[in-house]
Amino acid sequence: MASSVQPKATPPRVETDPSTTRGERFDAWGYEDTNFALENDLVTLKGSRYELSGKILPGLMTWASSIIGQPLHLREEFIHKQMTPIAPPKIASEFLDGLTQHHISWTQDDTARRRHGHGHALEEVYAIRLGRMHRAPDAVTYPENEAQVVRLVQLAQQHRIVLVPYGGGTNVSHALMCPESEPRAIVSMDMRRMNQILELDETNRMAHIQAGAVGQDLQTELEARGYTLGHEPDSIEFSTLGGWIATRSSGMKKNRYGNIEDLVLDVRMVTAKGVIEGRAMPRESMGIDPRHIALGSEGNFGVITSAKVKIFPLPEVRRFDSVLFHDFESGLAFMQDLSRVPPYPASARLLDNFQFQFGQALKPESHGWKHLKSQLERRVVTGPLGFEPDKMCAFTLLYEGSREEVALQTARVAKLAKKHRGFRAGGENGKRGYQLTFSIAYIRDFMMQLGIMAESFETSVAWSDLAKMCVAVRERILAEHKRLNIPGNPIISWRVTQVYHSGAAVYFYLAILGTGLKQPAETFSILEHAARETILEHGGSISHHHGVGKLRAQFVPQVKSAVGLNWIEGAKQQLDPENIFGIANQGLERKNQV
Amino acid sequence: MASSVQPKATPPRVETDPSTTRGERFDAWGYEDTNFALENDLVTLKGSRYELSGKILPGLMTWASSIIGQPLHLREEFIHKQMTPIAPPKIASEFLDGLTQHHISWTQDDTARRRHGHGHALEEVYAIRLGRMHRAPDAVTYPENEAQVVRLVQLAQQHRIVLVPYGGGTNVSHALMCPESEPRAIVSMDMRRMNQILELDETNRMAHIQAGAVGQDLQTELEARGYTLGHEPDSIEFSTLGGWIATRSSGMKKNRYGNIEDLVLDVRMVTAKGVIEGRAMPRESMGIDPRHIALGSEGNFGVITSAKVKIFPLPEVRRFDSVLFHDFESGLAFMQDLSRVPPYPASARLLDNFQFQFGQALKPESHGWKHLKSQLERRVVTGPLGFEPDKMCAFTLLYEGSREEVALQTARVAKLAKKHRGFRAGGENGKRGYQLTFSIAYIRDFMMQLGIMAESFETSVAWSDLAKMCVAVRERILAEHKRLNIPGNPIISWRVTQVYHSGAAVYFYLAILGTGLKQPAETFSILEHAARETILEHGGSISHHHGVGKLRAQFVPQVKSAVGLNWIEGAKQQLDPENIFGIANQGLERKNQV
Repeated sequence: MASSVQPKATPPRVETDPSTTRGERFDAWGYEDTNFALENDLVTLKGSRYELSGKILPGLMTWASSIIGQPLHLREEFIHKQMTPIAPPKIASEFLDGLTQHHISWTQDDTARRRHGHGHALEEVYAIRLGRMHRAPDAVTYPENEAQVVRLVQLAQQHRIVLVPYGGGTNVSHALMCPESEPRAIVSMDMRRMNQILELDETNRMAHIQAGAVGQDLQTELEARGYTLGHEPDSIEFSTLGGWIATRSSGMKKNRYGNIEDLVLDVRMVTAKGVIEGRAMPRESMGIDPRHIALGSEGNFGVITSAKVKIFPLPEVRRFDSVLFHDFESGLAFMQDLSRVPPYPASARLLDNFQFQFGQALKPESHGWKHLKSQLERRVVTGPLGFEPDKMCAFTLLYEGSREEVALQTARVAKLAKKHRGFRAGGENGKRGYQLTFSIAYIRDFMMQLGIMAESFETSVAWSDLAKMCVAVRERILAEHKRLNIPGNPIISWRVTQVYHSGAAVYFYLAILGTGLKQPAETFSILEHAARETILEHGGSISHHHGVGKLRAQFVPQVKSAVGLNWIEGAKQQLDPENIFGIANQGLERKNQV
Repeated sequence: MASSVQPKATPPRVETDPSTTRGERFDAWGYEDTNFALENDLVTLKGSRYELSGKILPGLMTWASSIIGQPLHLREEFIHKQMTPIAPPKIASEFLDGLTQHHISWTQDDTARRRHGHGHALEEVYAIRLGRMHRAPDAVTYPENEAQVVRLVQLAQQHRIVLVPYGGGTNVSHALMCPESEPRAIVSMDMRRMNQILELDETNRMAHIQAGAVGQDLQTELEARGYTLGHEPDSIEFSTLGGWIATRSSGMKKNRYGNIEDLVLDVRMVTAKGVIEGRAMPRESMGIDPRHIALGSEGNFGVITSAKVKIFPLPEVRRFDSVLFHDFESGLAFMQDLSRVPPYPASARLLDNFQFQFGQALKPESHGWKHLKSQLERRVVTGPLGFEPDKMCAFTLLYEGSREEVALQTARVAKLAKKHRGFRAGGENGKRGYQLTFSIAYIRDFMMQLGIMAESFETSVAWSDLAKMCVAVRERILAEHKRLNIPGNPIISWRVTQVYHSGAAVYFYLAILGTGLKQPAETFSILEHAARETILEHGGSISHHHGVGKLRAQFVPQVKSAVGLNWIEGAKQQLDPENIFGIANQGLERKNQV
């Protein structure tokens, strides 16, 4: 069944992509109404959506220049003017007719196709703004119910089409990148029209929710009914329940509510062989749990259509806190002590000195770095505590629970902070740290206009390896930066974001000046790749919660035994012998090409 | 390669089976030195091992007779005189030579073979004591390290042998029952010589432990070093780490420490294709986690040789508590309230009225039922609280944690107990309830001598279905008991043993009078099977933590989707195409017969 070129026989039903309806940007992270802008050497966050919106950030450019070691300004060659063109779609018109016949909405609009063919990794955003976009899906579909999803799979089987599930498109692992070598047409399934809470079971505190529900919508709807999901990944504004499951996501409050695998009681996934489903039991012992095909599946095994998840009554108390430490080591020792005995704060994050400074540089107007510096000098630096602005670290905390429990958590933090010579810096600073998460997500695309290539990546690691691993990554980055003759200073910084029994999750921030480089995004990739090598060598994991996608696929054989990999390939063969779900993440393309 | 009959060419190396060394009984549950005995109409627990040991239980026989509705006495036809004979072993002498050649200890001793071919389900124990034992393994091996296990698998492949991993032999799911229709020789691998703590990592609070380590030994060794595993299944005296993983076990303190899947950071499993292993990370996102082949594998996929598990510093405080409730409904409402907000007591168990009475009947001498009754009458029954001895229920609690946390837990329990009109009955009663767990395990085999067939079985269920399901099971048992013309009254009783977010685990106790029945154990099985049907119909799970084995295999298609089952069969085919691990649990025999 060969692909035939357009035009198609019947017109598509869809008019508007959910990204448009939701006001999302197609060429960068986030909302259309929000972006960092540079006017008269002053940075402002445009729009009114966030705490920081509309505020002038006087300290940012000066601080950034001093860090990167070069004067910074908008660079013509890094200014995005229009999205890069993509190749015209190639797909059997019979397939599209089949969609229309079964009332499944679809489009072949370039913007929609482009959007559904990438996540938010630096290379991808660079490609659509300044480079050359690789392959995009040949069509985008918008199923409205599970029956349509099942029908889509049948049509894909009939017409030899590859199907790619799409949630919020927020991944940073190249998971949505279409394989260039795939000879078949590729069709994206945007799941966001399947966004209903099908059932809210208050007695058993669980909800049955469609996979395309977007995090913040779920949050709003559940909160109105007195509940929370407790799952708050940094991408919550855009990412979906199905995407969380497929990526094995983690939220900032996981200490209290658990990660996605702890929250999901049952998953429904449409595979090429039919629907996988279970019974949402409190806990079972019945051998291999088929839910684990869905968790972390990254589109390889099927499309998740709905899940039963835990819901929690809203906590009686929700309170922020923060502590300043003399150095990273003290903060880390505090964190490890904190992890030893429950109850744990819902969230606990340690920022290194760079990120602490960055947070200060993002303070608006008079609350900026200079102001803080003078404040600090008055209060702590020149005081008996003797904090050094270039060494000190910040720790942000969020307590949730009953009044008594939060009181207990707070008392433990106070006691441990004292032990590690920390300075309690109040709830306001803690709260600000968390709110920054959402506005700061826009800064990468702004920095790109200054010629700076920046990205974050994460890992998890045992307590004993954490500090050593971070230092090794810094050294490796410095060496690679030098070897590759990259201008300016590289920025490599980290925060410790999630606490576990045996270790923690570490988030790295890497930025380089791309000006004068022939291939800035590719150069950045070389550094990121080197960092991952070093992470693995020093006891870190392939990923804490971003997943593997294609970006980290080549490291899989280092972290999974040959027998385990073999088993997974067998599972793929069993469930999807024709490779309908051919997005080829985690290296699963190797043995499953049709 | 056909099997040849004995004698073998070379003598085995082993002299003593670990069960002998450990003083375990071969014909019933537990230790040789402990059993309930009836002398002059008085029951005594012989030996000195337990709290109850050496004590006379004056109330037990009278109470039991009144409940079962028949006079009870030792019955000649139910007295176990000698273990039933088993068929002589049939196995290729070349295989045994191979073992000897590679210094792998083995035996063909009848007692050892018999012991390694059963768990502790009623039908199995009845069979070795009073009935006809089904097939036993043809030999028992005792590997001492992973290299020997790998060698064993190679020899099994070479000589077409089925291998069966053996831990503590405590399962109650027929998981160790050798398939009668298996044409090949069957060899048991007793893992208990691999019982070392290979590494204790205090910084990252984890230990690398060999799979054959027995629970109580681990507990003793870790406690001496200031740690606990936090995993305390009722079988902890005999069951092993590897067995816990293979069964997906659950412990009484799971509210605080988690179930086995929460405790295991990495597993090593020898399969027919090689060793599956991972890296013990705090948490990862890397697709399907091969550890999940091992968890709940029940011998189907390979043999677990070691695991990295969490260890916890011993809690500052460990304190028992108990509450009496007017009825089961009040106790359940209390339990559900308790589950709503952390921190949870490490353990929380609700006993129905029957089990409460049973506990009283097991009180020694003057502390027995009559004494308690008079005490109760004085203190609560005739008092303003008005408890009724035939309705009231008991709730036992165990708090663990820091002083502050335990104080908080205790305050919550006090508050909620008051809300549900509970009467705090003190730590002594709570402690006694937990200690009874270990001595009570012996009573089933004692009761058998009186002609009573008894067994427990468990499930998990949503809060909203719990009470209804229990009542439905009782009604079903009453109906079946009548239909089958079984003498006396059936006993069907339950406790709620583990608390989850969306529901709880329920443990049923079923007992019938087997006197005059042609096939007492088979009749019991019919009732148990009927109970499971009703459990599944009323929202319960196939198993909370006992697993599936062969006893519950026929219910698997009701609880796993066809696609999910298909995937699991594919995994089996992939990992073990020759079906070396042919113990055929969970219904995996159907498509994998060689």
